Amino acid sequence: VSSERLAEIQSRIDRQAKPQGSLGRLEEFARRYVAITGREDVRRKAVFTFAGDHGVVEEGVSAFPREVTPQMVLNFLDGGAAINALARSVGAEVVVVDMGVDYDFSPMEGLLLKKVAKGTANFARGPAMTRRQAIQALETGIEIAFDCKEKGIDLVGTGDMGIGNTTPSTAIAAAFTGLSVARLTHRGTGIGDAALARKIVVIEEGLKLNAPDPADPVDVLAKVGGFEIGGIAGLVLGCAACGIPVVVDGFISTAGALIASELHPGVRDYIFAAHQSVEIGHGAMLERIGQRPILNLDMRLGEGTGGALAMGLIEASLRALREIRTFDDAGVSGQEAP
Amino acid sequence: VSSERLAEIQSRIDRQAKPQGSLGRLEEFARRYVAITGREDVRRKAVFTFAGDHGVVEEGVSAFPREVTPQMVLNFLDGGAAINALARSVGAEVVVVDMGVDYDFSPMEGLLLKKVAKGTANFARGPAMTRRQAIQALETGIEIAFDCKEKGIDLVGTGDMGIGNTTPSTAIAAAFTGLSVARLTHRGTGIGDAALARKIVVIEEGLKLNAPDPADPVDVLAKVGGFEIGGIAGLVLGCAACGIPVVVDGFISTAGALIASELHPGVRDYIFAAHQSVEIGHGAMLERIGQRPILNLDMRLGEGTGGALAMGLIEASLRALREIRTFDDAGVSGQEAP
Repeated sequence: VSSERLAEIQSRIDRQAKPQGSLGRLEEFARRYVAITGREDVRRKAVFTFAGDHGVVEEGVSAFPREVTPQMVLNFLDGGAAINALARSVGAEVVVVDMGVDYDFSPMEGLLLKKVAKGTANFARGPAMTRRQAIQALETGIEIAFDCKEKGIDLVGTGDMGIGNTTPSTAIAAAFTGLSVARLTHRGTGIGDAALARKIVVIEEGLKLNAPDPADPVDVLAKVGGFEIGGIAGLVLGCAACGIPVVVDGFISTAGALIASELHPGVRDYIFAAHQSVEIGHGAMLERIGQRPILNLDMRLGEGTGGALAMGLIEASLRALREIRTFDDAGVSGQEAP
Repeated sequence: VSSERLAEIQSRIDRQAKPQGSLGRLEEFARRYVAITGREDVRRKAVFTFAGDHGVVEEGVSAFPREVTPQMVLNFLDGGAAINALARSVGAEVVVVDMGVDYDFSPMEGLLLKKVAKGTANFARGPAMTRRQAIQALETGIEIAFDCKEKGIDLVGTGDMGIGNTTPSTAIAAAFTGLSVARLTHRGTGIGDAALARKIVVIEEGLKLNAPDPADPVDVLAKVGGFEIGGIAGLVLGCAACGIPVVVDGFISTAGALIASELHPGVRDYIFAAHQSVEIGHGAMLERIGQRPILNLDMRLGEGTGGALAMGLIEASLRALREIRTFDDAGVSGQEAP
């Protein structure tokens, strides 16, 4: 993203009839969106909710049974989940991407069939996937971004569904940040104390066993990641390549975005961090990516829900850019010198 | 607001197909809105931007000249200001209330002519207004709330316009919180170091001279307040009386809401604190009111801009309440026990 272009847009904002800088981060959102896309409006926006299952759930790391992944995918396609409600509230489409759910879906409107395999292997016993599968997951996300570019989707949100997926996300956070697993692990969808202790041990042992190489992000994805996380990482890479701002949802999406930003630091400028999740490892990943979260509403649902809400604010920032008059046009006196 | 009713709504949210509590503060917004209004949607929403001038500007406390107050009022009525753009982005109406601008407006669509006087007196030299004027300002706001109730306006936002009005707002914050003026005073729309030092002295001396009694909030409003601040305080009181949730914008609006909540602590349950302003005295007032801000976007514009954005999130929370299916309806398995 060109810093000259950013400065140009800011100087236009600075002529608007309001104290300079007084719209705070809205000015940043507008500036970045326009610099990335060359547009001042959003024609279409879509949330891509990537779904996958996780072998590591057999270690008892999740509060929900594995069959909830396909059940929720069907709920998304039926329009009855939180992401559907919140996407509707901002006028965004929802597309579900089956990256690796342990279920055979029939072709359906709003569902992309991109299954790499029926769930990852249990990373407590060996690598979650092969390197080839990791690359396939990344490529799937990249292709979706190119497809968005063609369809005039100007703003993309990421989302996830996968019972057990805070476990690989925490492993990814630990692999890149070097922070201790105990410090990064949270209760996910709501496990108790014993399961939390177990989750920490599982992640620690999985990291020790697989020894993912943080200098090789594809290796981290393959050893301790997930198919939906790979799809998200690919989408973030692809959006940056295509010049589409990408709103990264919460903990799992940020694990994907972190893989992307470790593969190519240039993608960071294209990322809008939707919100600060309750998951404690989230902040450490965002810090490494270098983006401040837009919202902080104590959410921890995933699906792309925080991203949908943040899209509404980004769109509002563009309206402010387009519609606020300048001091001259509005006949308003400028700042004095006191 | 009935705690039984709040619990009833939460238990309905808890049956929705998502981990309990995972929508965080959105659940709080929906719960409170429904408990207050008895409705699950918003028929109409409106931002009331109260405008007034301030005698204290003759002390050199603002970066902008006094004529900007009427100029901006005309800009609001013409639809070209930040509040117009952001209100449009959430589908809210904007109503401007002339509480005390030093200018004669002709009757216009979207403008309520409620002038108490052409600006307050300089509180550095004596009381800003008489007690009678303070009560008139409060009553004006209360009447507007009753009018909203009649018109089916289910969600109200507050906003302000008044060159110099961070100065009375800071004085109000100091009067109620007992914190030092130096600790509470910020740069407003953007004054330099010398003007900031001067602003602190002006507020300190105004408080000393007028000795407002914090146990008598009408006295605080009269001695160091403003007409638009009184209007906002009245609107907050009236909304609570009518059962309308009121989204309180930033620093100046919160000074008004603080006067209302000191007059009757029961109003606090009806307040949605829109955002955390950059103004440093803002947090101290919000803490006293007991509401956490919804957004934190480094904004410091006023007009009702933060409130408009927060209204969008409150409305999204209602959509989530209405549209997310239960575990049973969606055919999704519930939480296990680990």
